[in-house]
Amino acid sequence: MTTFSTRARVITGAAGLAVVGAATFGALSANADAKTDTKPDTKAANAKGLITTQHLSAASATKAAQAALNAATKAGQHVSVAVVDRDGNVIVQLRGDGAGPQSFDSAEQKAFTAVSWNNKTSALVNNLQQTPTLKDIPGTLFLAGGVPVDADNAPVAGVGVAGAPSGAMDEAYAQAGADAITR
Amino acid sequence: MTTFSTRARVITGAAGLAVVGAATFGALSANADAKTDTKPDTKAANAKGLITTQHLSAASATKAAQAALNAATKAGQHVSVAVVDRDGNVIVQLRGDGAGPQSFDSAEQKAFTAVSWNNKTSALVNNLQQTPTLKDIPGTLFLAGGVPVDADNAPVAGVGVAGAPSGAMDEAYAQAGADAITR
Amino acid sequence: MTTFSTRARVITGAAGLAVVGAATFGALSANADAKTDTKPDTKAANAKGLITTQHLSAASATKAAQAALNAATKAGQHVSVAVVDRDGNVIVQLRGDGAGPQSFDSAEQKAFTAVSWNNKTSALVNNLQQTPTLKDIPGTLFLAGGVPVDADNAPVAGVGVAGAPSGAMDEAYAQAGADAITR
Amino acid sequence: MTTFSTRARVITGAAGLAVVGAATFGALSANADAKTDTKPDTKAANAKGLITTQHLSAASATKAAQAALNAATKAGQHVSVAVVDRDGNVIVQLRGDGAGPQSFDSAEQKAFTAVSWNNKTSALVNNLQQTPTLKDIPGTLFLAGGVPVDADNAPVAGVGVAGAPSGAMDEAYAQAGADAITR
Amino acid sequence: MTTFSTRARVITGAAGLAVVGAATFGALSANADAKTDTKPDTKAANAKGLITTQHLSAASATKAAQAALNAATKAGQHVSVAVVDRDGNVIVQLRGDGAGPQSFDSAEQKAFTAVSWNNKTSALVNNLQQTPTLKDIPGTLFLAGGVPVDADNAPVAGVGVAGAPSGAMDEAYAQAGADAITR
Amino acid sequence: MTTFSTRARVITGAAGLAVVGAATFGALSANADAKTDTKPDTKAANAKGLITTQHLSAASATKAAQAALNAATKAGQHVSVAVVDRDGNVIVQLRGDGAGPQSFDSAEQKAFTAVSWNNKTSALVNNLQQTPTLKDIPGTLFLAGGVPVDADNAPVAGVGVAGAPSGAMDEAYAQAGADAITR
Amino acid sequence: MTTFSTRARVITGAAGLAVVGAATFGALSANADAKTDTKPDTKAANAKGLITTQHLSAASATKAAQAALNAATKAGQHVSVAVVDRDGNVIVQLRGDGAGPQSFDSAEQKAFTAVSWNNKTSALVNNLQQTPTLKDIPGTLFLAGGVPVDADNAPVAGVGVAGAPSGAMDEAYAQAGADAITR
Amino acid sequence: MTTFSTRARVITGAAGLAVVGAATFGALSANADAKTDTKPDTKAANAKGLITTQHLSAASATKAAQAALNAATKAGQHVSVAVVDRDGNVIVQLRGDGAGPQSFDSAEQKAFTAVSWNNKTSALVNNLQQTPTLKDIPGTLFLAGGVPVDADNAPVAGVGVAGAPSGAMDEAYAQAGADAITR
Repeated sequence: MTTFSTRARVITGAAGLAVVGAATFGALSANADAKTDTKPDTKAANAKGLITTQHLSAASATKAAQAALNAATKAGQHVSVAVVDRDGNVIVQLRGDGAGPQSFDSAEQKAFTAVSWNNKTSALVNNLQQTPTLKDIPGTLFLAGGVPVDADNAPVAGVGVAGAPSGAMDEAYAQAGADAITR
Repeated sequence: MTTFSTRARVITGAAGLAVVGAATFGALSANADAKTDTKPDTKAANAKGLITTQHLSAASATKAAQAALNAATKAGQHVSVAVVDRDGNVIVQLRGDGAGPQSFDSAEQKAFTAVSWNNKTSALVNNLQQTPTLKDIPGTLFLAGGVPVDADNAPVAGVGVAGAPSGAMDEAYAQAGADAITR
Repeated sequence: MTTFSTRARVITGAAGLAVVGAATFGALSANADAKTDTKPDTKAANAKGLITTQHLSAASATKAAQAALNAATKAGQHVSVAVVDRDGNVIVQLRGDGAGPQSFDSAEQKAFTAVSWNNKTSALVNNLQQTPTLKDIPGTLFLAGGVPVDADNAPVAGVGVAGAPSGAMDEAYAQAGADAITR
Repeated sequence: MTTFSTRARVITGAAGLAVVGAATFGALSANADAKTDTKPDTKAANAKGLITTQHLSAASATKAAQAALNAATKAGQHVSVAVVDRDGNVIVQLRGDGAGPQSFDSAEQKAFTAVSWNNKTSALVNNLQQTPTLKDIPGTLFLAGGVPVDADNAPVAGVGVAGAPSGAMDEAYAQAGADAITR
Repeated sequence: MTTFSTRARVITGAAGLAVVGAATFGALSANADAKTDTKPDTKAANAKGLITTQHLSAASATKAAQAALNAATKAGQHVSVAVVDRDGNVIVQLRGDGAGPQSFDSAEQKAFTAVSWNNKTSALVNNLQQTPTLKDIPGTLFLAGGVPVDADNAPVAGVGVAGAPSGAMDEAYAQAGADAITR
Repeated sequence: MTTFSTRARVITGAAGLAVVGAATFGALSANADAKTDTKPDTKAANAKGLITTQHLSAASATKAAQAALNAATKAGQHVSVAVVDRDGNVIVQLRGDGAGPQSFDSAEQKAFTAVSWNNKTSALVNNLQQTPTLKDIPGTLFLAGGVPVDADNAPVAGVGVAGAPSGAMDEAYAQAGADAITR
Repeated sequence: MTTFSTRARVITGAAGLAVVGAATFGALSANADAKTDTKPDTKAANAKGLITTQHLSAASATKAAQAALNAATKAGQHVSVAVVDRDGNVIVQLRGDGAGPQSFDSAEQKAFTAVSWNNKTSALVNNLQQTPTLKDIPGTLFLAGGVPVDADNAPVAGVGVAGAPSGAMDEAYAQAGADAITR
Repeated sequence: MTTFSTRARVITGAAGLAVVGAATFGALSANADAKTDTKPDTKAANAKGLITTQHLSAASATKAAQAALNAATKAGQHVSVAVVDRDGNVIVQLRGDGAGPQSFDSAEQKAFTAVSWNNKTSALVNNLQQTPTLKDIPGTLFLAGGVPVDADNAPVAGVGVAGAPSGAMDEAYAQAGADAITR
């Protein structure tokens, strides 16, 4: 038997991934050179086997980050904030005025951890009692202050805050950030 | 004046990013512990400000990678292959039998470069004549063998091949990979 | 003779560094544990030999980053933006919707380069003609799109933008960001 | 509830961050090329939203580092010493004669940790009993030998010493370094 | 005495390494330039002191990876998969649709760990009770989900799976991958 | 057209990769714990789809490295030496007495480059005239001093030497190393 | 009080560092270009404040590494071996035939750890009971298999072995290596 | 023919490396635990095959670094300074007040480059005309501002300065640093 058995009750209820034959991806940062253009044939333009996924917009992520930072500032605390997408890439990262140097990377790793397991990092810490090596996974930090952002019970982003004197405070500010874009 | 003027003709024609208030993201790899569960309140479940994006499925990416590898093998060449998504994350990476050690990272970087500018790396090399420091951007490799995969003229993935004796050969195999999922 | 002679005309005219015996640094992210507290003696509280420096606030940096992103969006371009302080540390970093994966690190390095030499990166590129190895300095990117933010002719921050089809466009958005906090 | 509750009593009493509209930052390491100069318009010269911060001068940091090294040498010990600023950047780093290879990075990380939480690392170690994952934050080392340097009860720098046979000895030398610039 | 005594019962029974004077290595990714060719003298063509080793083909590794991914998908789980060779190099790596960002590196490190000690990572975790610092070895992850692939009781590859809610589930899928190429 | 056309004449004549259903891999560094042993079922012991490859023995690699170092010492030069296998992994690395600090990594990268393209690095440098970005491939160094070691015209290892005042001298010592195990 | 008190009994008895005004350093890997030579003035040739240190020759280090590897081979074990100098730089590193991929870095880190504290790593592991965060120092590995090499009771090198099924075995081979150059 | 021929005139005339059977290495940073001590047998105390080398003392290196910084300050310039030993390890590193963020790493790499080839970096730049890939060697920077420190015509250290508006100025300050410990 393995040591993970109590973690097996998750319900992935949320719907499957919609696979479509064509798509309307609008983002384009192409680099077309009029003289040397050898773009793929137009007949090759539409890839098959595409999945429709949800991504938090930069505007929403910024709104969340600022709400988190404001909550900390209102409480007289100096923190850094990060919002990462479902793939762990940073959408927004903010180094608050007077925040300690350890807070910048911490905020990102808390956000990464929260979105990875779709749970608050304060809860995930408890998993280390049964599975202490979970924390050895690259990019993770099992420290309170990370909260997931969901859509239909599936994670689409993580908000991480670090720098306050307690993880409970960090988490409160991160939750304020998440609330700003979900309620 | 800047040195980039000839690159300015790109047409970003493809549609804008659809921003929706809720979404049906089905991917969930949560880690729920029955005892310590403190999942976010259900009332916080739906993030606002979501963007619908297209992502190549692992199945399609694998199909492309294998088609590229098969094309190389048929030609008696030993290569590595990578397929990366629009954010530059690897979906599939294959070290071909007998491929040189330099080919593994090269394939990934060629794919990264192709999807970054939505063009073949053999064409992007020409941009270095005007802007030689483009190649100093982290993660890029301006060497033939990378081709973009598009949906509605916007890049959704990149296929990179490395290890054959010429970049033209690498590109032919990468194109075979892209063709396998677009035609 | 050296190869740098034309760069020697800089005027560092701006005032010297004010060295004071005590200071009013207000940022504190301390971690005091009531039980284990062994804080330094209060008699050791005031360091001598302090320099008063200027730092862009997170609020101002965010304002600049958003102004840059807005300028790009208005032009139909998808970019990433970074604002770094005089020491090269990121204050704010934003991954714009649909921006290519190469844009995130590029934006930071352009900002770093602009604040390092207190000049636009589009101008600094010209220095490579005489001193091509300048671009080998870690953390730098000699590519248009970075602009410095000054106070009394001395650099206090850098704004970097990347992802548009030309460096001239990147620079225009970065300048819009800088303008938002200086004019 | 979180696991950090006992750390919540910190008093950030020290004054807020002074935000000013203009500043007298004197540091300039510009790279002006007479021929290619395209410096920002003079009208853009003064950034708004600046914060006045305190930074330990290189002269003071060197004085502290040498005092720490002298204290160790007097005791017959071979150590390395680092002084980092409030943002965690090294101001001075010294590899003492005969110091072990592990001491160089250790000294820097101890200094980083001390300035991050404004406390001696020997005291911070105790926080690991309640929050063991604090030590997973990148750049930190929870090992005696780091002491903060304060100005008005806020941290402006950290001094780290490593290489002596006990952390208590390392801390004594680091404290000697801090004392040299505060008393 | 050391702390490793109970690990000493391994039987390395498998045959020694065949050392031959010449070999039929068929992999060649050479870069011959007709004009600048200065290939080594043909008389230097055959190295002495060669060892014959076994390597899993890319085709077999891909078969294993897909079998693992299929097993997870059938169970409604979203995972990443890696297959590494005896030297720890990745042969195939797959980011499954909807898999968490932590799963990609985890899968590789689990595979690396399994092939390093020729055992399932779920079993290797038990070794940490006696030797907790084993987990500090670079590249390893002592978390269930890695299984070795053997030939004549010696390891030739490792299969790693990560992303499911329990390590037991990850291991089951990894085993399905290994079974696909051994049974 | 691509820029690589002149490199297309390589003859991969050497035999294909022998794919066998079972193998006699003798290397085993297992970690069996008598108490916690959960080794894979014996019925899973033999992987299918194995390739027989040739690897330079540590003894031969050491012989080559020492021969290279001796040749340099005899000439009064101070160098470092590396021997890497076909996958680019270091088999032996030697820092010669008095060799400059730049020589250690250089030697490894020269060896890596030589085995990647199965040619002397002094010859490969010429390829940069047509394809200058080849040198941007991670791990490579296009500088004389690397020579491949072949078996049946296919590369099995690379020998790299660095630190002498000219690349021609470095190459002569590297060739002496290769000759020691091929003639 | 600190947590290190029991480690304070070390006797650094060995003599101080001989400081001389001039020296006979013979190692020179200069790069003199007849045409562009601008060597420092001969009057600047002799630095003051030099320390005479002892360094293990490459020949002796190789002898130690081979003795360690031979001891392992005689016992039927497959290991990697590293010999590092007092500054932690690798002098010789050997990847033994059939050694697991985890062994290469492990061997180096064990050697680094042994020379850092001038003790066997099997003994240093015990220090973790009182000071568990010692193992967080970059470059160290607190795992049996590292032994120091001394001259007049001061460390001049470390020998590390990894890959055998127990740390006790690794240490025995490392000791055989050290003995080969000290007895 | 190779491209390095003009660099072959170096005279390594300086004496060979003194190999002694025993030595008086005085540096000891041991970590003896009274309870767990298992120090190597005293009979193994003296390694054979030791080389006597010269190392710049921390005191001298600090003197050089401060002299360089003072020279810059006197000229109104803001720079960083590094002094590295013959093995490229930093002995002292100083971030000058107001120096740009690019100067810290640059100073170290210039010092590394100067000591590697025992020449000023302003002269070494000329070697790139014949051998442009020299600058791809890890750790090097071919930019004026690095000067070697010699003893009997062999390099024992390097001094690097960066941050002034021209490399000629950087070199003048670095030379002032070197002069402070050689004249």
